[in-house]
Amino acid sequence: MAHQISNSNEDELIHLLTKNIKTAPEILTGIGDDCAVIKKNNSHHTLLKTDTVVESIHFNTDEAPHRVGWKAAARVISDFAAMGGQPEALMITIILPPDTHTTWVTELYKGIITASKTFKCSIVGGETSSTTIGSPKIISISGSGTVKHNNLTLRSTANPTDLIYVTGTLGGSINGKHLDFQPRITEAQWLTSNIKPTSMMDLSDGIAKDLPRLAKKSNCGFRINKNVIPTNQNCTIQQALTDGEDYELLFSIPANKKHLLETSWPQQFNNLKLTQIGQFTAKQQDTLKGGWDHFTQQ
Amino acid sequence: MAHQISNSNEDELIHLLTKNIKTAPEILTGIGDDCAVIKKNNSHHTLLKTDTVVESIHFNTDEAPHRVGWKAAARVISDFAAMGGQPEALMITIILPPDTHTTWVTELYKGIITASKTFKCSIVGGETSSTTIGSPKIISISGSGTVKHNNLTLRSTANPTDLIYVTGTLGGSINGKHLDFQPRITEAQWLTSNIKPTSMMDLSDGIAKDLPRLAKKSNCGFRINKNVIPTNQNCTIQQALTDGEDYELLFSIPANKKHLLETSWPQQFNNLKLTQIGQFTAKQQDTLKGGWDHFTQQ
Repeated sequence: MAHQISNSNEDELIHLLTKNIKTAPEILTGIGDDCAVIKKNNSHHTLLKTDTVVESIHFNTDEAPHRVGWKAAARVISDFAAMGGQPEALMITIILPPDTHTTWVTELYKGIITASKTFKCSIVGGETSSTTIGSPKIISISGSGTVKHNNLTLRSTANPTDLIYVTGTLGGSINGKHLDFQPRITEAQWLTSNIKPTSMMDLSDGIAKDLPRLAKKSNCGFRINKNVIPTNQNCTIQQALTDGEDYELLFSIPANKKHLLETSWPQQFNNLKLTQIGQFTAKQQDTLKGGWDHFTQQ
Repeated sequence: MAHQISNSNEDELIHLLTKNIKTAPEILTGIGDDCAVIKKNNSHHTLLKTDTVVESIHFNTDEAPHRVGWKAAARVISDFAAMGGQPEALMITIILPPDTHTTWVTELYKGIITASKTFKCSIVGGETSSTTIGSPKIISISGSGTVKHNNLTLRSTANPTDLIYVTGTLGGSINGKHLDFQPRITEAQWLTSNIKPTSMMDLSDGIAKDLPRLAKKSNCGFRINKNVIPTNQNCTIQQALTDGEDYELLFSIPANKKHLLETSWPQQFNNLKLTQIGQFTAKQQDTLKGGWDHFTQQ
């Protein structure tokens, strides 16, 4: 029997598909970071991102559609934050069974529009297409952002001995947070302007999956202190590590910036926890398992 | 019973969803043209586009996957051509049932990569997501392009008395052309650099649907000479008007450029037909019906 995609995990499949792709010189960063980065002018780079939510995977059928719209847009906006950038323009693709109620679609759009206004970006295009009756509703949002040259922060530039931090509290997002989370645009702007993290990403699949990704892109190992992982109410540390969909920032700084970060953060964001959860290392030390995978964990 | 989207046509639904959307000043053109246009630097604007193909709607289940990949990418590239621009970066979203064979996906990617190399753009990101068994395969491609300020050509800028032209021959694309068409990047570059069309779009849904769209965006009416519509072999004029998926250029020029265009075109593109099919007018004259609609004509 031929190999089916359900036998692969998502990272393996993406690697298989994209391993031979070459990009033009103006593409500063292509596949493998939160956004692609394109050289554009003397002050800013352009960021590109696409992201998709699928009914029954990313949202339940009976969920309020405006919350689904917020989530679909906020996931993309969160990726612009993770690069140190800001969203600029969004394109909305909706693929729906023909028996979808028009009010469901207009409510979905209200959520998307609210997110775009909140984070000051424009809806500039999109597409509607139909799928077969009984197929899941799909919302795919792509778009562009901008990042100041000096603020651009990649996944691949952490150094061994850098300290690893996470914003907010983690776990149990399925109870609601996955639909109304706040992309950390303001926090990432402040971090990249004032602290200059050496690497950064947003936590979409859980620390257990995302921290090893970040370490691998930077050719580092890591140590993690699981006892200090900041958990949401009624969540275990294991849930905080593996549930996913927190959309908090995971980033690293040089050890000599620890004091500056930890004293200035509470003055800026006194309602948002900041926790040092570990440190990057030269060789592989700790390992983590679990976290969300689109193909193998449904 | 609540109103279902299958009771709307695609243009009505998009209008309903997007009528209240406002865009920022740097968005020169948002919803309603082939691409969005964003002001970026002193020589070029950035173009953004997203487009989706769905199994059983845009391609048959037994179709060779590399042809599906070519089509999915070439549709987006064709939209960059229609603005007078060139593609720069593509992001590939594939949403597949878990029983999809891995070889189907790798072959699909080969077609996408061939198109990206042919038209000199980079694949910079994307996503894989799974859908339920039995749901159609979906390939959604979005990306950015660039256009020289002087070459930017919109749908909204035709004038009454401008002459209307179409490249190539039309109709019957379902027999194969819809899977291996050539986006008219080179032709559009030449046109926008040398003739300066007053309006342009690519023909995705057929002249019967697309010419009224172009006229409406420019607040014009039109006259069309159906007898001169260039048809593909074994196609009727009605098919040429309504089949869709030709991806030829539909554009207008001032009447005083007729001689220049018609004498210089054959020297540049002697294998590609060019036909004047009509003229824009101040008031509505002819009407056309039919053409492809994603919601009402399946």
